[in-house]
Amino acid sequence: MENSPLKTFGANVRELRKALGYTQESFAQHALLDRAFYGLIERGKQNVSLRTVCALSASLGVGPAELFAGIDSQQCAEWLAGPQPKEAD
Amino acid sequence: MENSPLKTFGANVRELRKALGYTQESFAQHALLDRAFYGLIERGKQNVSLRTVCALSASLGVGPAELFAGIDSQQCAEWLAGPQPKEAD
Repeated sequence: MENSPLKTFGANVRELRKALGYTQESFAQHALLDRAFYGLIERGKQNVSLRTVCALSASLGVGPAELFAGIDSQQCAEWLAGPQPKEAD
Repeated sequence: MENSPLKTFGANVRELRKALGYTQESFAQHALLDRAFYGLIERGKQNVSLRTVCALSASLGVGPAELFAGIDSQQCAEWLAGPQPKEAD
């Protein structure tokens, strides 16, 4: 699952978070998200809901669409057709 | 919640589904989603996960970002700060 949509999503969030100068811990506080939960998101291990996508969008100051940059429908189809990934470990 | 991100997301999905010539029922079958669950998504009543976003993306043939067209960070912030919406009724 090197190229899973969750991993791309998490990498996008990480990049935007770092660009704002936050640590993982300070950003999680800012976004009112649990620190461990937030860490899993950045690592692509967490299948978050639209509500959490919105919390990330609001806290990063970018529209939700930007968090999905670099993910296309083909990548989604291949991911869904593949073995079920572990979402947390 | 007239302008909630979930409603915009659902309207985007509905528009793309109709453009492909699917009924709600035939699209739900195509996307391997429960018909009632899919109806709630189009009506903005369902807080779906990234896995379901990917299933919609793959079945509609557009990147996940397109499903979030017209939603900005401010709309997300206002929605999260407002009263908890009913996600199903």
